Amino acid sequence: MPTHEQMVTAVQAYIEGFNRQDADAVSRLFSQHATLEDPVGTPKRRGLEEIRAFYANAMGTGAKLSLVGPVRTATNSAAFAFSARVIMSGRQHQIDIIDTFAFDDKGKIVGMHAFWGPQNVQVL
Amino acid sequence: MPTHEQMVTAVQAYIEGFNRQDADAVSRLFSQHATLEDPVGTPKRRGLEEIRAFYANAMGTGAKLSLVGPVRTATNSAAFAFSARVIMSGRQHQIDIIDTFAFDDKGKIVGMHAFWGPQNVQVL
Repeated sequence: MPTHEQMVTAVQAYIEGFNRQDADAVSRLFSQHATLEDPVGTPKRRGLEEIRAFYANAMGTGAKLSLVGPVRTATNSAAFAFSARVIMSGRQHQIDIIDTFAFDDKGKIVGMHAFWGPQNVQVL
Repeated sequence: MPTHEQMVTAVQAYIEGFNRQDADAVSRLFSQHATLEDPVGTPKRRGLEEIRAFYANAMGTGAKLSLVGPVRTATNSAAFAFSARVIMSGRQHQIDIIDTFAFDDKGKIVGMHAFWGPQNVQVL
């Protein structure tokens, strides 16, 4: 089972990898058969190829992520609040998001869920 | 499907009901066959009777909850960060938690997950 410290390190590597637009580094945090649902309620991405493509696309928006508050961990899962800043239609926007990660015994992400919707997007 | 506003209202009613130690009001936010996993990785509580008993016990600690940041909503789900202040062994503690709620079409909670662990507990 991953430790709290391992899960926090993975979340930090996720944020940092996203912000330097390194889709390889971010997708390496996931296990081979991981699933990703972002936002919750949309079709799941399955496996590293779909997950890498998802992040390459998301990073292509130029969004920059910032953690908000501590990473919460429970057994093999983590949850964290963060905001994404992204320019859309020439204007800076902030999206408030909460992600949850479930980890396998090796500390790889096996399931990712992102909670955010239109009401969590604001123009700055 | 519940609206963003309905889900936010349910989260606020949850926090307020907890803080006035009203286990009936909090358990009424759940559907009859809801499940609750708090913290994630521990055995699920199933159905209103077990859920009400869980909250009556949790409220009995005197813990007081405060929302931190906006409620995130995605389709039929919500996630929110909060902290719980509780006196243990004569000392004020803060526990940082993230909860996720899945709602049914009537706006009742059908699944609740709470993410927190020993590393999210601090002495104030």
